[in-house]
Amino acid sequence: MVSKAVAKYVHALHLKKYRLRHEAFLVEGGKSVLELLRSGLQTERVLVTVEFAAKLPAQLPNVPVEVLTEAELTSLGTLATNNTALAIARLPTEPPLQPAPGGLLLALDQVRDPGNLGTLIRLADWYGLPGVVLSETCADPWAPKTVAATMGSFTRVPIWQRDLPAWLATLPANLPVYGADLHGDNVHHLTLEPTGVLVMGSESHGLTPEVEARLTQRLHIPGRGQAESLNVAISAAILLDNFHRNK
Amino acid sequence: MVSKAVAKYVHALHLKKYRLRHEAFLVEGGKSVLELLRSGLQTERVLVTVEFAAKLPAQLPNVPVEVLTEAELTSLGTLATNNTALAIARLPTEPPLQPAPGGLLLALDQVRDPGNLGTLIRLADWYGLPGVVLSETCADPWAPKTVAATMGSFTRVPIWQRDLPAWLATLPANLPVYGADLHGDNVHHLTLEPTGVLVMGSESHGLTPEVEARLTQRLHIPGRGQAESLNVAISAAILLDNFHRNK
Repeated sequence: MVSKAVAKYVHALHLKKYRLRHEAFLVEGGKSVLELLRSGLQTERVLVTVEFAAKLPAQLPNVPVEVLTEAELTSLGTLATNNTALAIARLPTEPPLQPAPGGLLLALDQVRDPGNLGTLIRLADWYGLPGVVLSETCADPWAPKTVAATMGSFTRVPIWQRDLPAWLATLPANLPVYGADLHGDNVHHLTLEPTGVLVMGSESHGLTPEVEARLTQRLHIPGRGQAESLNVAISAAILLDNFHRNK
Repeated sequence: MVSKAVAKYVHALHLKKYRLRHEAFLVEGGKSVLELLRSGLQTERVLVTVEFAAKLPAQLPNVPVEVLTEAELTSLGTLATNNTALAIARLPTEPPLQPAPGGLLLALDQVRDPGNLGTLIRLADWYGLPGVVLSETCADPWAPKTVAATMGSFTRVPIWQRDLPAWLATLPANLPVYGADLHGDNVHHLTLEPTGVLVMGSESHGLTPEVEARLTQRLHIPGRGQAESLNVAISAAILLDNFHRNK
């Protein structure tokens, strides 16, 4: 059983306000905790069940580990049940964001659903993108639901939170800024290089006009059925595959 | 306010057992209800708020419409809140499933998450696929969460529930049966025609061995980062885009 102070701290980290204040966040579930321990991120504390303790790496970083019952672990976290592990990690320091980054950066405008955001961070990891730039109106990348949806990719993908239109305005004029648009160019007819910025907006809110004004090319994914649109993570996946098929 | 009998009926339809018994299902949210009313599916009853009533089509099919408060509507359904509409629809009759269907059928093995299932049905709609064949271990396509995740595509995509290995065994020997596999052929090096069957398994459960044994070609989506895998709907989206880029 953890001390009252630790329990209070873990509960506080359910909320963004306290994650920012303490510069820490929660990692829930055995698989994500193992990814955390294998990563370069700093871990403050690990809480595990007896069953999961056996699965911890033999060479643990210098971090306190406490063994709890499943009921205790569940009561501390945000998952419906947790019979494996929960960790407290330090928020990573934002790496410098170059004005003309190499590769293709993913920029997200108003993606407010943490599940979608986590899936997009995982996609950035799959394609080895240099990172993801989030508008201030996106979901919190360090919310437990976002972290869980990244399936471990939160340990590998650099994330920046920016005033998106202002940041886009600082980019070199010749850097391509792509966006998805139902009336854009058919991606199957283009040869796309993974350089510049791909901006994706949420399905319900779309791109803010200030962001849309910064696009240099609009891309369309051809469908042939009657669905009106695709989810933001699905669209991003298809576009990223199209950006990476020529190398 | 609806009668006790109607309230009891709506609550019963939260459960698969009663959806099967009554051959009916729930459609929640204004957008989905409008799609239902525009579709060929049979609607038994529509429940709306005063605000949403004004958005109903002028030419309503012959269906009883009742006006409720938001609180009443919310208490009947499965959504956290519902300030628009809820409808009861008849389960559609399964169309005949041809032994050698034209086009590319999507077959899903053990996709137990209703959100993923709904997203996959929506993808089938986007690409105009002839339909989706579900293993008996998939989530219920008529569960409220699945229906909501299809974003209206539940009205357009034929769905069959089958013993998947047994159904695959009935297909002509020369019909291609594709599946995703990390060690499969790089899709960027193939010219894929949208004919045959694309089988997708869930990320956590994969394909059952009996289904895997029926594959005629394994497909790999090349990534370049460190994420181990992609979600089933994301993978299906990328594969479907690759199947539809040559026509």
